[in-house]
Amino acid sequence: MANITKKVSWSSRGDESGGGERTPLLNGSEEVRYTRQLSGDGGMFHIGRLSTVDLEEDMTSDEDAGCPKEIPHNEKLLSLKYESLDYDNSENQLFLEEERRMSFLGFKCLEISRWVICGLIGFLTGLIACCIDIAVENLAGVKYFVVKQNIEKFTEVGGLSISLILWAVLNAAFVMVGAVIVAFFEPGAAGSGIPQIKCYLNGVKIPRVVRLKTLVVKVCGVICSVAGGLAVGKEGPMIHSGAVVAAGVSQGRSTSLKKDFKIFEYFRRDTEKRDFVSAGAAAGVSAAFGAPVGGVLFSLEEGASFWNQMLTWRIFFASMISTFTLNFFLSIYNKKPGDLSSPGLINFGRFESDSVAYNLYEIPLFIVMGAAGGLLGALFNILNYWLTIFRIRYVHQPCLQVMEAMLVAAVTATVSFAMIYFSNDCQPLGPDQSEDYPLQLFCADGEYNSMATAFFNTPERSVRSLFHNPPGSYNPLTLSLFTLTYFFLACWTYGLTVSAGVFIPSLLIGAAWGRLFGILLASITPDGSIWADPGKYALIGAAAQLGGIVRMTLSLTVIMVEATGNVTYGLPIMLVLLTAKIVGDYFVEGLYDIHIKLQSVPFLHLEAPATSHWLTAREVMSAPVTCFNRIEKVGTIVDVLSNTSTNHNGFPVVVPVAASDDMGKVCGLILRSQLIVLLKHKVFVELARSRLTQRKLQLKDFRDAYPRFPPIQSIHISQDERECMMDLTEFMNPTPYTVPQETSLPRVFKLFRALGLRHLVVVDSENRVVGLVTRKDLARYHLGKHGLEEMQLAQT
Amino acid sequence: MANITKKVSWSSRGDESGGGERTPLLNGSEEVRYTRQLSGDGGMFHIGRLSTVDLEEDMTSDEDAGCPKEIPHNEKLLSLKYESLDYDNSENQLFLEEERRMSFLGFKCLEISRWVICGLIGFLTGLIACCIDIAVENLAGVKYFVVKQNIEKFTEVGGLSISLILWAVLNAAFVMVGAVIVAFFEPGAAGSGIPQIKCYLNGVKIPRVVRLKTLVVKVCGVICSVAGGLAVGKEGPMIHSGAVVAAGVSQGRSTSLKKDFKIFEYFRRDTEKRDFVSAGAAAGVSAAFGAPVGGVLFSLEEGASFWNQMLTWRIFFASMISTFTLNFFLSIYNKKPGDLSSPGLINFGRFESDSVAYNLYEIPLFIVMGAAGGLLGALFNILNYWLTIFRIRYVHQPCLQVMEAMLVAAVTATVSFAMIYFSNDCQPLGPDQSEDYPLQLFCADGEYNSMATAFFNTPERSVRSLFHNPPGSYNPLTLSLFTLTYFFLACWTYGLTVSAGVFIPSLLIGAAWGRLFGILLASITPDGSIWADPGKYALIGAAAQLGGIVRMTLSLTVIMVEATGNVTYGLPIMLVLLTAKIVGDYFVEGLYDIHIKLQSVPFLHLEAPATSHWLTAREVMSAPVTCFNRIEKVGTIVDVLSNTSTNHNGFPVVVPVAASDDMGKVCGLILRSQLIVLLKHKVFVELARSRLTQRKLQLKDFRDAYPRFPPIQSIHISQDERECMMDLTEFMNPTPYTVPQETSLPRVFKLFRALGLRHLVVVDSENRVVGLVTRKDLARYHLGKHGLEEMQLAQT
Repeated sequence: MANITKKVSWSSRGDESGGGERTPLLNGSEEVRYTRQLSGDGGMFHIGRLSTVDLEEDMTSDEDAGCPKEIPHNEKLLSLKYESLDYDNSENQLFLEEERRMSFLGFKCLEISRWVICGLIGFLTGLIACCIDIAVENLAGVKYFVVKQNIEKFTEVGGLSISLILWAVLNAAFVMVGAVIVAFFEPGAAGSGIPQIKCYLNGVKIPRVVRLKTLVVKVCGVICSVAGGLAVGKEGPMIHSGAVVAAGVSQGRSTSLKKDFKIFEYFRRDTEKRDFVSAGAAAGVSAAFGAPVGGVLFSLEEGASFWNQMLTWRIFFASMISTFTLNFFLSIYNKKPGDLSSPGLINFGRFESDSVAYNLYEIPLFIVMGAAGGLLGALFNILNYWLTIFRIRYVHQPCLQVMEAMLVAAVTATVSFAMIYFSNDCQPLGPDQSEDYPLQLFCADGEYNSMATAFFNTPERSVRSLFHNPPGSYNPLTLSLFTLTYFFLACWTYGLTVSAGVFIPSLLIGAAWGRLFGILLASITPDGSIWADPGKYALIGAAAQLGGIVRMTLSLTVIMVEATGNVTYGLPIMLVLLTAKIVGDYFVEGLYDIHIKLQSVPFLHLEAPATSHWLTAREVMSAPVTCFNRIEKVGTIVDVLSNTSTNHNGFPVVVPVAASDDMGKVCGLILRSQLIVLLKHKVFVELARSRLTQRKLQLKDFRDAYPRFPPIQSIHISQDERECMMDLTEFMNPTPYTVPQETSLPRVFKLFRALGLRHLVVVDSENRVVGLVTRKDLARYHLGKHGLEEMQLAQT
Repeated sequence: MANITKKVSWSSRGDESGGGERTPLLNGSEEVRYTRQLSGDGGMFHIGRLSTVDLEEDMTSDEDAGCPKEIPHNEKLLSLKYESLDYDNSENQLFLEEERRMSFLGFKCLEISRWVICGLIGFLTGLIACCIDIAVENLAGVKYFVVKQNIEKFTEVGGLSISLILWAVLNAAFVMVGAVIVAFFEPGAAGSGIPQIKCYLNGVKIPRVVRLKTLVVKVCGVICSVAGGLAVGKEGPMIHSGAVVAAGVSQGRSTSLKKDFKIFEYFRRDTEKRDFVSAGAAAGVSAAFGAPVGGVLFSLEEGASFWNQMLTWRIFFASMISTFTLNFFLSIYNKKPGDLSSPGLINFGRFESDSVAYNLYEIPLFIVMGAAGGLLGALFNILNYWLTIFRIRYVHQPCLQVMEAMLVAAVTATVSFAMIYFSNDCQPLGPDQSEDYPLQLFCADGEYNSMATAFFNTPERSVRSLFHNPPGSYNPLTLSLFTLTYFFLACWTYGLTVSAGVFIPSLLIGAAWGRLFGILLASITPDGSIWADPGKYALIGAAAQLGGIVRMTLSLTVIMVEATGNVTYGLPIMLVLLTAKIVGDYFVEGLYDIHIKLQSVPFLHLEAPATSHWLTAREVMSAPVTCFNRIEKVGTIVDVLSNTSTNHNGFPVVVPVAASDDMGKVCGLILRSQLIVLLKHKVFVELARSRLTQRKLQLKDFRDAYPRFPPIQSIHISQDERECMMDLTEFMNPTPYTVPQETSLPRVFKLFRALGLRHLVVVDSENRVVGLVTRKDLARYHLGKHGLEEMQLAQT
């Protein structure tokens, strides 16, 4: 069997220098094509390239005349800068002793604290959603009021260009604030945060993603960008916010504020923290869409590879509390206390379905709409992909980023204004009209400009009016123009250095063309009355477009159904999302996955690639491995940890085999973070002997250092101490998972996914260490259009 | 550390004599109390007994004067007669060669066949549901029509006792048919089938559970029992039916009909079959309740311990197709083709919610109702538990079982008749009255007997009328009497030898007392109008009662919400179910879990007991282990397989260690079923040498034998052949999962659950086999009221 040679050997892996996540990846990488002939049975595995890369190359060859040849093939690289999370408990002696000491009652108390924490997470997430909602409503209200006054003033006398400038300046000002705090203070708060949370739940440590500062910037940023009139939503960031809240609350302390409440110390490890972060993400979804079940499914789909019933209940609990809190406070704010009818930030309103909500013969139409959504979604993603490549290359200074954001804000206002100005779609103001800021403009008295309903409004309200305004509220031309402009605006906006989500713009685009579809359908069929409700098609279109862009699946169906408040549309929504996914996946991945790939994150998919059975652990693993002995010299440990070129995070502990210079037999596994704590506390054999009173190291010491373990350079080890010995027996995990070398890749993969592993020791038949498989080794292999593909490892 | 001594040593385990599942377990078992002091740190682990056992003992001491002392402590025993399923692929050379030979396109085709199968499963399940529904409606319609005619005839002239006898005889006749086919032809079809499917998805092979015969008997049985007027529902059996359909379709053949379609051969192994069975169960739930998302969650909750996105999608697809098929055919049957508004067998009808569906101050009331549901559910379960113990002991002959079922049917009719007869709750017949069989009886003209609405009806219709009939349709006395009688009738009915579910009776009981609660609330509060809708309380009561009895959790919430067709009630339903679960769990387990325990099934819960960290693989494992060499003598293999006292199913394959009589180093694992196939095909080294033309054994040969491998006794091995050698290298799994002896129980447990293991080899530091952990070894430990408890192993 041929071996695929690795581009980067083990000895140069694992650079963990954080903070550089926004540096563009400019490493060159030659295109490598492997053609591999399997011994004897004629299987061909073509390790080719993604078709999107070809697209990108076309583009770069067009415009990169003067550029260096290194083009950012980021999606073909896996960055080594990302560390992994430890979702497998290190069951060392300290841990086992603590667990064994704990009584049954103790476990009950822990369980109750978990519930309390989940309740708190839900409550705080709901509260944050409530604040965002109220702030956006008020700021946008003031803005639209001022602009409306101004427009009304100048409509009569002429000089509407002043109104335009006022609008554009107001927008740009809001967006500037939002972009400045993101670009200069916390770049991690940019975007919707969903890709980052997906990575976190997948097991990748994205630097600074769950910090308090990120949360503050995120919340302020999203308020500014929505109030600034960008084509963005405030829903995506809620998921990130919920996750940060969860990570903070569950640890009972804030490192940013240097405050330790000395509670929940038991939960200070990756395993527990991840569980709470799933709950937080679910609470965020729940608050954003009023969809508690959808939230649970989102968390499960993205994170919890292992279904745990109690955890699921707690996640559900956090979700319910979150939507309830939001609902409750909003009802007080709206002066209707106790009226629990607005469970989410976005509320699709009630679809009053009669007994026949849809008919059998409409289902093919829905499927066609799903396919259209998939196509449009793929187009959106490809355009945004090019744009992101462009941004990575040219727009990576904070000043430029802020300026781009302001530009987009001003352009959005200008385009909207122009569309409204040139539109002549006037509609009568009904008695029950639901417009918040009806613009009369050049319409007759008692009428309003229909284009303004779509543009001169927060996107959430626009979506609702597309769903529910009676037939005839919009004419087809208005809708087509709106779809077209908003599509490009939204595409340009996503990826700006502001904190904002893509859910609502997607829904809005889809609702617009869906409604258009409904209207056209009614007009071309003889008996138009059976397609009476264009709002239904708006809903289906919204689902199709959203599905085509983000490609989330089961959870998205449930989110849509819950936001609609009506299960009748479950089947069509599901069919539409499925079609959109199949069609979209044919062209390009989902938007979040594209952005994850562009960050070169070692993201582990749900299953091993189908055609990877010919790979075994021997070929996948990294070797040789740096091992330690049970009782190891301090100097050796310090040297290994200090060696920046071998910046490993996990080290097998071995018992040397007598009369052999081979690798020893594996007897444990110890992590860099554990060694750092041991060195910091100088847990040396000699010192323990001399100072009998020395306190025994406890699990608490490890927890106190979690999660920001100091770098090895900050620990001073004297020359004398270097000669001491360290006994690792008590601290290593004595039962690491091991596999034989012949284990197939799917089997290794399954073990990794199911158990949330970070390191898997590969042993020979004598139990000697021969290699180590890490998440990055597995993430390299993925299924492309033509079979298995292998990515390369990059240092940055 | 103290070791818990095993009651049954390894050498006497694993009797797989099938078919005896209904034999009562009468093995004696002494009550053993362990008190265990951990070395040094004072942890006390009291291994006590369940409180329900004490209840049972009280009962037995009352009535067991003349009985032998062996009382059936079934729930303290684990039966060894149940085999486990292999959810971990045996990745032997044959398997890997096949996988490697398969092209990327081949995998695509497989994926498409999986979708096709899921579509078929959904379609057939929906069709079955449709047949059941139509059959029940017609049979029950004829019955109620005849009885109604008769009652009307005799109301005037007197002699209603004739009507009573007619009703009772009709009921008993239907039930007799249903009971006879179950008791005499296929006892596996008894009950709702949900416990059996839970076990199957959990990994326990319940004999005959997914056979075609079971399906036929189940379908006919449920039609008879519902038409026979028992307090049962037709929803539970749908889940079982869906699972059987899935198991049949996915294998592309029927062993019962001796028909092999030669398709889907790739899926003939436990791993794939389980996936399809999950889809089938989900399709069943979906058809039963019109709840596709609920179906998916049910399957995930019960079975798929490992979240797999593609699988989830397929399950969802099957669910959607199933509800759609049912809906479509029912709409044609109801002569309203295309009207897709009855997605499930049970349809709760539309709750027309105004903007304020419920208020904040109603939530405490809902929680109180949840607690009441938990209490009533626990009472129901305890009563049913006693009854089941009684049945196991005294009613285990088919004739007796049929007679009991007929008795219950007659009593149900009699009690119903008496209740209707003595009720004087007359209600006016409205113009839009929705009663199907309004009984006038002694009411004035234009009025009907309200008690008859509840009793003289199929339970589904009764539930719907309790939810939706306008306030005042029932008086409180009627509801209280109905609740009381139906509670005991349903409790007596569950566990009869008929095919029937407990969902609808639970809902009906809960709806009755919930409505009663709503009426009382309206009458005691000064402003009764705010509690205007007793139907809302009926819904909450139904959820509470169902939650108190079955204790399913997340899936049940979603099922209820989907069946209601209204997400507004999501929060209250969830709170109510959670409360009911907490309150109920305090007293006794859920009904399904009780019945699983009474069958002594080695059911693996979702997590290891919290306080089990002090147990290690060394204490849990079975030792010594029967191992084979890579090249083993046929005689040895036959002897080991024939030895009924060591009826193992998995055998480590070892390489002997030179100069040592210890266990050899593990190099593989081979299953009994594989050995059987090898013996059957006489794959002996000597024969291969002599007959050069001998066909090489392929994976197909193993698949053809799956799942009913012949017993070793049926394979003839001559004395000469016994001297031959067999080379296991190609057929054994060369990379079985192994753990060191020191691995803690939770770690072993996690490995088992996450990977769906059946055997886990325990090795020492030299990789030598020291023991084997099986599902039964883990299932023995469970968490009782006071900490860890250990169950004993029984031979039957």
